[in-house]
Amino acid sequence: MENVKKTIGSFSFDHVGIAVSSIEESLVFYKAMGLKNIHFEEVPSEKVKVAMLELENSSKLELLEPIDNSGPIQKFLDKKGPGIHHICLRVGDIHSVIENLKSANIKLINDEPKKGAHNMLVAFVHPKSTGGVLLEISQPQ
Amino acid sequence: MENVKKTIGSFSFDHVGIAVSSIEESLVFYKAMGLKNIHFEEVPSEKVKVAMLELENSSKLELLEPIDNSGPIQKFLDKKGPGIHHICLRVGDIHSVIENLKSANIKLINDEPKKGAHNMLVAFVHPKSTGGVLLEISQPQ
Repeated sequence: MENVKKTIGSFSFDHVGIAVSSIEESLVFYKAMGLKNIHFEEVPSEKVKVAMLELENSSKLELLEPIDNSGPIQKFLDKKGPGIHHICLRVGDIHSVIENLKSANIKLINDEPKKGAHNMLVAFVHPKSTGGVLLEISQPQ
Repeated sequence: MENVKKTIGSFSFDHVGIAVSSIEESLVFYKAMGLKNIHFEEVPSEKVKVAMLELENSSKLELLEPIDNSGPIQKFLDKKGPGIHHICLRVGDIHSVIENLKSANIKLINDEPKKGAHNMLVAFVHPKSTGGVLLEISQPQ
């Protein structure tokens, strides 16, 4: 397998996604801690409102609040309660990363990159192949 | 409360701690993805072996494998299975962050910073006060 692997460039930590029942209530804690650089948006395709708490090293915490009862975050809250939902690594070449993972028989939720927020290309790896971690990989376009 | 808050400087994402049954088995996935910059250490006080996968933006993934049956990671694995255990933010002034959190009646696991790996000062915030997230804050000395 080693010989088919492509060089894929850098990996950076992009964000951690945190499922919350209420962004407003959760922000009481994060503001008390001292985080101040916060942006808000809505992602209708994922049925969530998002509060992004920007950190210094090009990374962020994303608080994810369901906007209806049918989306993935509401399902996560119903099953596990509030907490860390996923992590996201920013990569240099998402197509090559996906190719490497497929070569290693890693189970992907998205076989091809899809368009995410902020015009990023994103794909999720299945927790069954990562040891229980829902892992997103993203690439700025 | 606003007027007693201290300026605490920067927040950066430091690492995500991932509980695993076997570092060796977990690394099969991470190496397939293309992560290559890996360091190993043992932290007897926490009863874990650690594999640190270094990322570009001064952050890392930490795979945590229990070295006996009594430590916190083994307890987490017994209760929840493998997956994300905690996240860690690196701060400019951990004493002021702790002071701010106490002023806001946030429940801390460590009321004072303790010495962690790599000579860092660290403290954990209780998941009850963060909305289900075990949050570590750290400051390089």
